[in-house]
Amino acid sequence: MAKTTRIAVTPGDGIGPEVVAEAVRCLETLRARHSLDMEWARFPWPSHAWHEEHGESMPQDALDQLQKYDAILLGALGDPGPVDDPDRYLLSDSVSLAPLLDMRKGFDQWVCERPARLLPGARQYLADERAKDIDMLVIRENSEGEYVSQGGRLRKGTPDEVATQIEVFTRKATDRIIRYGFEQARNRATNRVNEGRTRTFKTLDGRTCESQVCLVTKRNALRYWGDMYTEAFEAISKEYPDVATHHELVDAACMKFVQSPWAFDVVVASNLQGDILTDLAAVLSGGMGVAPSCNLNPTNPDMPSMFEPTHGSAPDIAGQGLADPTAMLFTTARMLEWLGRKDPKIAAAGKELFDAVAADLAENAGTRRGTHEIGAAIRKRL
Amino acid sequence: MAKTTRIAVTPGDGIGPEVVAEAVRCLETLRARHSLDMEWARFPWPSHAWHEEHGESMPQDALDQLQKYDAILLGALGDPGPVDDPDRYLLSDSVSLAPLLDMRKGFDQWVCERPARLLPGARQYLADERAKDIDMLVIRENSEGEYVSQGGRLRKGTPDEVATQIEVFTRKATDRIIRYGFEQARNRATNRVNEGRTRTFKTLDGRTCESQVCLVTKRNALRYWGDMYTEAFEAISKEYPDVATHHELVDAACMKFVQSPWAFDVVVASNLQGDILTDLAAVLSGGMGVAPSCNLNPTNPDMPSMFEPTHGSAPDIAGQGLADPTAMLFTTARMLEWLGRKDPKIAAAGKELFDAVAADLAENAGTRRGTHEIGAAIRKRL
Ligand SMILES: CC(C)[C@H](C(=O)O)[C@@H](O)C(=O)O
Ligand SMILES: CC(C)[C@H](C(=O)O)[C@@H](O)C(=O)O
Repeated sequence: MAKTTRIAVTPGDGIGPEVVAEAVRCLETLRARHSLDMEWARFPWPSHAWHEEHGESMPQDALDQLQKYDAILLGALGDPGPVDDPDRYLLSDSVSLAPLLDMRKGFDQWVCERPARLLPGARQYLADERAKDIDMLVIRENSEGEYVSQGGRLRKGTPDEVATQIEVFTRKATDRIIRYGFEQARNRATNRVNEGRTRTFKTLDGRTCESQVCLVTKRNALRYWGDMYTEAFEAISKEYPDVATHHELVDAACMKFVQSPWAFDVVVASNLQGDILTDLAAVLSGGMGVAPSCNLNPTNPDMPSMFEPTHGSAPDIAGQGLADPTAMLFTTARMLEWLGRKDPKIAAAGKELFDAVAADLAENAGTRRGTHEIGAAIRKRL
Repeated sequence: MAKTTRIAVTPGDGIGPEVVAEAVRCLETLRARHSLDMEWARFPWPSHAWHEEHGESMPQDALDQLQKYDAILLGALGDPGPVDDPDRYLLSDSVSLAPLLDMRKGFDQWVCERPARLLPGARQYLADERAKDIDMLVIRENSEGEYVSQGGRLRKGTPDEVATQIEVFTRKATDRIIRYGFEQARNRATNRVNEGRTRTFKTLDGRTCESQVCLVTKRNALRYWGDMYTEAFEAISKEYPDVATHHELVDAACMKFVQSPWAFDVVVASNLQGDILTDLAAVLSGGMGVAPSCNLNPTNPDMPSMFEPTHGSAPDIAGQGLADPTAMLFTTARMLEWLGRKDPKIAAAGKELFDAVAADLAENAGTRRGTHEIGAAIRKRL
């Protein structure tokens, strides 16, 4: 008999608890309707409130506790603190967001995957009609690179200060994220064929493929890892002759995301460049109101993956029932699809939730509805 | 008697020579019409062609030769090399673009200034009507940070490779770029008042100002220099109580550039983050076809500043008379305004050229014209 799927629910700060409440109600509905073998537990941390009380955003053994779960469903983190106290204001979000990075690191969630598809009903920021065809998957290296937190401040606070920040990239992590990108490109091509859609991409030498991976670096200025990424990409691409390849520098990539985002399929980028590209892709495909973010460990089944909407904690509207739970529910659907790798009934529930959220979005574009109203409308469709 | 203003003209690669030819014709017209005390000389380097022949993009004493000029007017650099030879294809642009970085470093052009204003006639990528009000100046730290080229590759080419890239930031360079940002904010407010326009920005504590500086960092992940930048910004802002201040993280800044670019005035960012933000700002304000880029040394009059369009060398359309010289001519106008700090007649010629290019753009939106046709139309207005 398969093991019960267990989810750690961490609502976090601001609007987090409100949107998570809708997610949990959807999980309840799906579990009841399909007798899913799935349970969850709620944690009051990480959060700003916990930090205020205990001097830390989560308990010392937080990761040990969370590791018992198959996935973490996170609402939103971050509290900008008192606006009239600049010192606290400026520092507080680094404090309240730190647990995100702790979890990614602690559970070696080495993939950050952020699909960007402009669904009917989502806000379209671009003037070009073809923006409707935006359908890309940005894959961000999530375990090293610019985010290793190495470096320091010499002569801190003096006019002679020198601050250094060291970026560390390993070939191992580079290879695995690039290979993951190619695998996703193949999966996407297969899924498209199953759905009766196809897309075509040209290789440099003129062949036609049904999927593409674009590698983003800044190798003309950041040579060391830029060259290593490029070499790894060239080598691995030989194993995937069916996938077209493409290179962009990060500045040009941002430009092309605005000019012709519909031309991208899978995009692989470093931790920081991926952070930037995913935010850009999110806004181009409808904005923070719809964007999910998945922090995955695809290799170690003992480590939970973490799912969060890309949006922040929006303290200005928190507690008023105004937050749109759409991104949170798309995130929940992604989580179920991921957990469904072991349990097809859960995968089907994820697909069902995704379709319900997408249908609700398409039907209610432009209407003003509260958090609970949107959640209830989506549950009705399940 | 004032010294003759001298310009080094470096056409570069691809469409560079074609668009530079139009710029030089405009300079000739302006010089003749206003008896400007200005001369120029043409250099066949840096360029890919020079590299092919001499094994280096420019002569060893290139910087010494260029230093005798007051400004460098650069067409475009870069040659992607033979598309069917991946190794050369991938490496060649790092080679051909290197002189750009050499000049910035060699002449301590510590400011990269890229104005982004959506002028009538320019292509509008955003759906929102308010994009017409985009009028920002992105100021990029151009002398250090992510671009110091320090680091290396340990166990290069093996599965155990580790690539490091070191970012180095000094308080001195941080202070000067931030202070430069505040000075530009003040200048812009003054210019707006002179033109009968005003804009208002709120400070965090609710006061109203006529200009704003937004500092962009990624201080929640890149703490060392992020904190130093933030502290420097807070300290210097106290000297400019008339300028509103604002902070953004780079990922959120990219998103807000798409969502509400009209809300920005002056933006200050690091070398790499500025590179990304300026490309994004360029596309939002009409694309590469119009965007100028100025690499300035405002402190040392013995060092030439360098002016280049943001666009690349577009080898695919080179030599066909198809390239749009608009960005090059806006760049030339900026150069004249900069050189005009010492010679008001040259400043006036810069303003005249800017107005002529803007008028041509407004009148001919959407029409297909060749390089020379556009150049001639603009010269007619001078
Ligand atoms: C909160 C911050 C450290 C984080 C990141 O940069 O990874 C966030 O921007 C994200 O993208 O999840
Ligand atoms: C060519 C490259 C090194 C350069 C940079 O990154 O600075 C370019 O992108 C630019 O913005 O001028």
